[in-house]
Amino acid sequence: MPALMNDRFLRACWRQPVDRTPVWFMRQAGRYMKEYQKVRAKYSILEVCKTPELAAQVTLQPIERFPLDAAIIFADILLPLEPMGLDLAFLEKEGPVIRNPVRDKDGVERLRAVDGEAFGFARDAISLARRTLADRVPLIGFAGAPFTLASYVIEGGSSRSYITTKTFMYTQPNLWRRLLEKLTQVVIGYLQVQIRAGAQAVQLFDSWVGCLSPGDYEEYALPYVQRIVSELKVEGVPVIYFGTGTATLLALMRKAGSDVIGLDWRVRLDEAWTTLGYEVAVQGNLDPVVLYGPLPEIERRVVDILDRAGNRPGHIFNLGHGVLPQTPVEHVEAAVEFAQKHGRRTV
Amino acid sequence: MPALMNDRFLRACWRQPVDRTPVWFMRQAGRYMKEYQKVRAKYSILEVCKTPELAAQVTLQPIERFPLDAAIIFADILLPLEPMGLDLAFLEKEGPVIRNPVRDKDGVERLRAVDGEAFGFARDAISLARRTLADRVPLIGFAGAPFTLASYVIEGGSSRSYITTKTFMYTQPNLWRRLLEKLTQVVIGYLQVQIRAGAQAVQLFDSWVGCLSPGDYEEYALPYVQRIVSELKVEGVPVIYFGTGTATLLALMRKAGSDVIGLDWRVRLDEAWTTLGYEVAVQGNLDPVVLYGPLPEIERRVVDILDRAGNRPGHIFNLGHGVLPQTPVEHVEAAVEFAQKHGRRTV
Repeated sequence: MPALMNDRFLRACWRQPVDRTPVWFMRQAGRYMKEYQKVRAKYSILEVCKTPELAAQVTLQPIERFPLDAAIIFADILLPLEPMGLDLAFLEKEGPVIRNPVRDKDGVERLRAVDGEAFGFARDAISLARRTLADRVPLIGFAGAPFTLASYVIEGGSSRSYITTKTFMYTQPNLWRRLLEKLTQVVIGYLQVQIRAGAQAVQLFDSWVGCLSPGDYEEYALPYVQRIVSELKVEGVPVIYFGTGTATLLALMRKAGSDVIGLDWRVRLDEAWTTLGYEVAVQGNLDPVVLYGPLPEIERRVVDILDRAGNRPGHIFNLGHGVLPQTPVEHVEAAVEFAQKHGRRTV
Repeated sequence: MPALMNDRFLRACWRQPVDRTPVWFMRQAGRYMKEYQKVRAKYSILEVCKTPELAAQVTLQPIERFPLDAAIIFADILLPLEPMGLDLAFLEKEGPVIRNPVRDKDGVERLRAVDGEAFGFARDAISLARRTLADRVPLIGFAGAPFTLASYVIEGGSSRSYITTKTFMYTQPNLWRRLLEKLTQVVIGYLQVQIRAGAQAVQLFDSWVGCLSPGDYEEYALPYVQRIVSELKVEGVPVIYFGTGTATLLALMRKAGSDVIGLDWRVRLDEAWTTLGYEVAVQGNLDPVVLYGPLPEIERRVVDILDRAGNRPGHIFNLGHGVLPQTPVEHVEAAVEFAQKHGRRTV
């Protein structure tokens, strides 16, 4: 296998010294880029995700345009739900919806176990993206974490208060466990496919886990993430575990055993890292909305985050959540430049 | 003035010993009650809020039904925006909307300063509710905090990512200050009217402040809350300051100087109180969705919160946010009973 030309990102995941802080952005391939909009004018999100040539093309778009230190495969956390038997669609205004949400025992039992073959599209997209990247930067694969997936499966889409999800948890705890176990198995298979196809790191998105109290997180979400991380250990690639609104969950999330914890913008990076302990790398944590602001403000906040990370190895610069659709593309470019200009040599 | 028959709530606000933990629930008058639905079948939210007889009637409904230790006036945090010149409506599905949101200098300048006379409806509702309560329990008045009000004024309604609000903050910081100062003055006047009409405590709802990073909170939200709390000190009633998603903001929120801090369910009450210091009372912190669950689960979680509060004076039992519309009324009743059964004598 040829050597990676830029291994800053992977070194930081393993908390090894780097010449400067690596930088990539969640949802760095997306609507804020004209190149992406052009593809989407012709194809739906699902078509792009499931057509390896399109997924690989879109994955490379931000890499061609900005000097980023990692690529992330273009996909959606809900993709593995389709082969399980869920009727997934992306609506223009409402975002993702599941037309046959799961609310009872029948619904859970009907969900199919899925083997790696169902994820041929992901294998081919990763493999093609790796070939096109030609080892310029590493490629990240990803999946949704079981709690966050379950919230979509139960609510039937996005939610504000997660009433149906939590009510399911509280009133049908055995069925909840059964559902989460099924999702856990599928996530493990989905990530194994991605890693074996060439993903050099994987990120678990537990985006909505911050709606839970620490006690509920520990009981209803953490055990499944622990199992995933533990199953993936043998694959030998770093695992990043990310959520938003997780300030009070960090010490528990650490128990999942991932190599990197993703932080949103609500926590101060240095305080969060102290809470987590320095045996784990951290990724983040610029508020994505800061990229709508003026350049000097963006620079000031990028510097603040890098200052808080200091010269300790194991910080990956990123946003605290994905790039938002209306973000000015020049501001994304400037943020990458600021992060690299002020990035730290770690020792 | 006749003595209050039940002063547990006020004593806890002042961190004085009580015979058992006081209990009230945010949005305890609301759609989950048939009595409330009957009134709303005939009148809009705005009509109920602005007709003192109806507002007082609805305020009393939960007091007649459950043995709560405080009443809160039925109103909405957006009410004071109308006399400022904002076109407020409550839509069936979307919730509150402002049809002429403020985005620029003209918009901010057009906002009218409002004197107490504009709040005659609040004065009369409070005064009538006090008479009807006849000192059974104290009456709480409330207002939105400036950041949370500004988010509605700028977004034109509820929001998920607060992009327009934060972009306004970052790109027009002087105009932001001007807007927040105007809102601050109106909130002070609105709360003074309520206190002078008989509100025996007031709560400031900074419901959406948890979308901010600690640095942004300190710069763009905290100073205005500090001013409000400081202006209200002479009124002699306790001030409760509440927000959601505030785990990383608590130490800063403490600097606002309120007598009580309201906690959501994402923080463990004992840890939050340690962060805040024991010179402030705390209110909370049951996840409102727990009330959708089975009674033994509700009891277990009520007990956990009371255990974490311990026998230290200054805990007011409440939810971590308002009662949700579909909550079974018997579960609200049970939660009040559990909280009282397990409530602590504090010393």
